[in-house]
Amino acid sequence: MNFNYPDGRKFQQESKPSKLNTTGAKKLIFGDRGMRLEDEINESNKYYRAHEIAVIYKKPTPIQIVKVDYPKRSRAVIKEAYFRQASTTDYNGIYQGHYVDFEAKETTNKNTFPLKNFHQHQIDHLRACLKQGGICFVIIKYVTLNKYFIMPASKLFKYWEGQKDDGPKSIQLSEVERDSYEITANYNPTLPYIEIINKLIESRKEQ
Amino acid sequence: MNFNYPDGRKFQQESKPSKLNTTGAKKLIFGDRGMRLEDEINESNKYYRAHEIAVIYKKPTPIQIVKVDYPKRSRAVIKEAYFRQASTTDYNGIYQGHYVDFEAKETTNKNTFPLKNFHQHQIDHLRACLKQGGICFVIIKYVTLNKYFIMPASKLFKYWEGQKDDGPKSIQLSEVERDSYEITANYNPTLPYIEIINKLIESRKEQ
Repeated sequence: MNFNYPDGRKFQQESKPSKLNTTGAKKLIFGDRGMRLEDEINESNKYYRAHEIAVIYKKPTPIQIVKVDYPKRSRAVIKEAYFRQASTTDYNGIYQGHYVDFEAKETTNKNTFPLKNFHQHQIDHLRACLKQGGICFVIIKYVTLNKYFIMPASKLFKYWEGQKDDGPKSIQLSEVERDSYEITANYNPTLPYIEIINKLIESRKEQ
Repeated sequence: MNFNYPDGRKFQQESKPSKLNTTGAKKLIFGDRGMRLEDEINESNKYYRAHEIAVIYKKPTPIQIVKVDYPKRSRAVIKEAYFRQASTTDYNGIYQGHYVDFEAKETTNKNTFPLKNFHQHQIDHLRACLKQGGICFVIIKYVTLNKYFIMPASKLFKYWEGQKDDGPKSIQLSEVERDSYEITANYNPTLPYIEIINKLIESRKEQ
């Protein structure tokens, strides 16, 4: 089910538990051009959890509940509720002792990635987590190009602050390529982003 | 707003951002006998975030959205939705590089704490996080006694497995006292549970 938030952002119902075969490798799940980034990450997280590689989840969408009905012999139905602004990023969890925190965004643009895809509270949250020693980044998907990038939060902050100082309101693909790690969509997991986390951990050690 | 889940568990609306003065200390917020554990933890988390001590949040309640209306000149209204079973514990975040994950439960009992307060998926999640090196525990509040305890997940597992092997279905207060750290409710933060996390980190180093 899809619909839009009042501000135009797309909302997508969190996927129900799928019948995806994550333990065997018989069923190949390729990074699918038609698959949404959120689903690709959720499937990857499922794979990582099933193989005890990492424990990372998408957080539920925050909802303000106003009215609930209790029909007889049936489960409770929420009859009036509203979307609330999240305070954090969408994904967090743990990988080999490291706290992992990230946001995921997709664009159909072929070159420029508009910074308005991010919100101040997400930047603030990433900054706070980074300060505590977390592995913080954003996953950017160029839907049309079928390309995926992981940009460390520290690099994103540079562009974010730049636009506030009257700099460009978007990031160019060449800049994303320079400041990010590219991930190749795969199967089991669909989006093997932990490989990039390993690189982020390595580059932190070198500093 | 309060109501019950179909299985009888109490649901409490996540608090709206309160006007709590977290940066100054003029307004004293004591651990209040009338305050719910969830609110006490949320206020403490707010304090920890405001003081850049830790970044820990309660996760939103997962909701399955079925129908949304878009009234003109008004925000989207969810007209039909259902509660979903959470896959994880309620709280997680980062403290000084450590991934922190916990569940919070309160009881009005004066002695026995029924294990049915926990669910298999919460135990499984805590176990998976512990395996990845997280700081994992449960906060238990005895409402009537106005006492708070932090029990490390490893201790909880012992009781959980015990009941599955036909052992006791609840934990005695004396056992909670023996296997947990007691926290004293305070002001700023309401529930200074990070002090206990420091002890958990210390005792891990000693092992």
